[in-house]
Amino acid sequence: MAGVTTPATALLAEISDVGVDPRRGGWSRHVFDDAERTLREWFTERALRLGLRVETDRNTNLWAWWGEPGPGAIVTGSHLDSVPGGGAYDGPLGVATALEAVGRMRAAGVVPSRPIAVVVFAEEEGSRFGVACLGSRLLTGTIDPARALALTDTDGTTFGDALRGAGIERTGVEYEGIGRDDAALERIGCFVELHVEQGRGLIDLDQPVAVASSILEHGRWRIDVRGRGDHAGTTAIADRHDPMLPAATAVLAARGGALRLGGRATIGRLHAIPGGTNVIPSRVSAWLDVRANSEADTRAIVEDVRADVAAAAAAEGCEASVIEESYSAEVRFDPQLRERLADLLDAPVLPTGAGHDAGVLAARVPTAMLFVRNPSGVSHAPEEGATDADVAAGADALTRVLTELAGTRDGTGDGAQEGARA
Amino acid sequence: MAGVTTPATALLAEISDVGVDPRRGGWSRHVFDDAERTLREWFTERALRLGLRVETDRNTNLWAWWGEPGPGAIVTGSHLDSVPGGGAYDGPLGVATALEAVGRMRAAGVVPSRPIAVVVFAEEEGSRFGVACLGSRLLTGTIDPARALALTDTDGTTFGDALRGAGIERTGVEYEGIGRDDAALERIGCFVELHVEQGRGLIDLDQPVAVASSILEHGRWRIDVRGRGDHAGTTAIADRHDPMLPAATAVLAARGGALRLGGRATIGRLHAIPGGTNVIPSRVSAWLDVRANSEADTRAIVEDVRADVAAAAAAEGCEASVIEESYSAEVRFDPQLRERLADLLDAPVLPTGAGHDAGVLAARVPTAMLFVRNPSGVSHAPEEGATDADVAAGADALTRVLTELAGTRDGTGDGAQEGARA
Repeated sequence: MAGVTTPATALLAEISDVGVDPRRGGWSRHVFDDAERTLREWFTERALRLGLRVETDRNTNLWAWWGEPGPGAIVTGSHLDSVPGGGAYDGPLGVATALEAVGRMRAAGVVPSRPIAVVVFAEEEGSRFGVACLGSRLLTGTIDPARALALTDTDGTTFGDALRGAGIERTGVEYEGIGRDDAALERIGCFVELHVEQGRGLIDLDQPVAVASSILEHGRWRIDVRGRGDHAGTTAIADRHDPMLPAATAVLAARGGALRLGGRATIGRLHAIPGGTNVIPSRVSAWLDVRANSEADTRAIVEDVRADVAAAAAAEGCEASVIEESYSAEVRFDPQLRERLADLLDAPVLPTGAGHDAGVLAARVPTAMLFVRNPSGVSHAPEEGATDADVAAGADALTRVLTELAGTRDGTGDGAQEGARA
Repeated sequence: MAGVTTPATALLAEISDVGVDPRRGGWSRHVFDDAERTLREWFTERALRLGLRVETDRNTNLWAWWGEPGPGAIVTGSHLDSVPGGGAYDGPLGVATALEAVGRMRAAGVVPSRPIAVVVFAEEEGSRFGVACLGSRLLTGTIDPARALALTDTDGTTFGDALRGAGIERTGVEYEGIGRDDAALERIGCFVELHVEQGRGLIDLDQPVAVASSILEHGRWRIDVRGRGDHAGTTAIADRHDPMLPAATAVLAARGGALRLGGRATIGRLHAIPGGTNVIPSRVSAWLDVRANSEADTRAIVEDVRADVAAAAAAEGCEASVIEESYSAEVRFDPQLRERLADLLDAPVLPTGAGHDAGVLAARVPTAMLFVRNPSGVSHAPEEGATDADVAAGADALTRVLTELAGTRDGTGDGAQEGARA
């Protein structure tokens, strides 16, 4: 196998046609859809070609192992799913650079003193079933498996049914056994996720790569307003119970709350049911994403929205509910590991407002993130990007990090005990 | 064939499973989808069983003829498509009562002195391609065929492509030849459409059947707001160009305009692209349905919305447009025909706020409508209904109307010259 190294840019080019979304622009790759399954097959084939052993854990995360899976492993990777109409780098960049890094280490004859694994987490964006980082949350036990199995997509398919119907190859475990997987977690010595930056920090610093300090706390709430479906032409205004009015109020209230408290609040997904031009909807569902500088501020923004929606619903004769779908406290990455990587790479340290599987893993294992500069500063949109030179710089940084953390059999460079759980 | 009469209630029961929409509730039957094609086949089979000759015109409207198609024909019928998640009566009631009426006339040995036709108009709701009454607008030349061919559904499929791919049987005319069909129009002596009432007029009057006086003027406008798609977590409020804010403003402005001017304004369909929970949309499209007591009031409501959307878009750094998709002036049905039917049936005369193919036909041929009581008063929703007794009363009324208008070979009851074009 040694000598067969494919650069991350070439790996990304191999999958650039998968999940192209002509309607929205960009790429749509959602857990267990055709595009995402194609990407799972691509990853498996690519990892096997590197001589890695590939397994699917019982939460449908993919693991490619170099060396015997066991305690103290150095794990890297990211995800292959996307938001609807998203960019090509959010997720795949971390997987592609991981495959390049392992390929380069093997080609260079590195014999690591610890096992190395490349992981692909399932449903990181939560674009199909609503809960972000679903694969890593299940793995770490931060979501109840029964709740996860009952999550539904917009067609009403449950996660449980989708699992059973997905035809994902797995390793002798029933899907009904999803949930916290201590055996899998105990193999991880540390986790390092490389990700395209989703802001302008590295543009402003004129640097290609950074190390993450923290992830802003964040959460998602589902707003449901139930009214009475009726004819748009024949129903007098006074007789209406139109759920679109409270939903529109929610959009404006979210912005008002974010301005008042200094956070970020977004309603980017809104479904009117049934959704006809000449039809007053019977129901509108909207999803509220809130992130602020403290849990108190985040919850205050949500309460602003809840109060305005309740008042608008009462005025319109509608019923409204605002339900928390997920909440993630602020994550501060392992300080020892963070400093070690920043020193090794001579890289700046930056926070992020975006959630990641690394943020979920950080509660259980020493975890770090690397960011690669994004020249547009835009993410979750087709404009998201990274230059070939910066992708190469990211792969180079990750190769150095893995080599440093995994150490070698002759002992040179093995400092993995520091900042990584044995 | 004589003697085989199926009541309208039984005909409606035959199609009650077609297009059931488990996600939205109610029925979704959209032009050229599986459900709508099943209904076309059902209608064709049912009409053939009555001994009628079925043809599809070049605008994909279905015609079932009793007697030789020719000038002075008495035409009845309605449509079989629905709004998304609509009711079971809006459209099918007029088709089922027409089939019952013709069956009863044939069973009774009536020999009409004029041809009779039952018509099923295509895409009456405009639920797939956005323009209501598309089939009758094409037939009468009130929409430019090139514009119709270029209309797109939410998947980006054009009406032209859908036509070519639909596999609808037709009568030797190329689909590229859609548009005003004078030969088809010249066969129509008069058109009578029976429809479920979409309000509470007949409930209040305690009557099963009414004759229509007029259709409120109405129109549809498409609002597009273009912003910049980005990450909901990493993009500061100050850096956002979020098109959802102007779209929400449009919803509230439509209500405000309707209250100010006494009309009806609705945004029941709103699409955020790409539509992810953690994604600021790049574009939001919303459809505005406005009806008021005058064209001036309707246009004033639209201008209220346009001004508020423009201001909100400017504040957010977005681009917005408000484009008229269709506008229909008030329709006053043929007064002579209306009075004749009201006298014949001893029925009240009521206006409606809903658009109909009859409103489009009225510009070209003497046209009337009958309404059947709807005990919920609700339409475009699963709660829409009619009791079996009222369906029977409607079929009875339509049978009397057709018998009266078509006359008989021996001359009894032939008063079709009055109020119907020979």
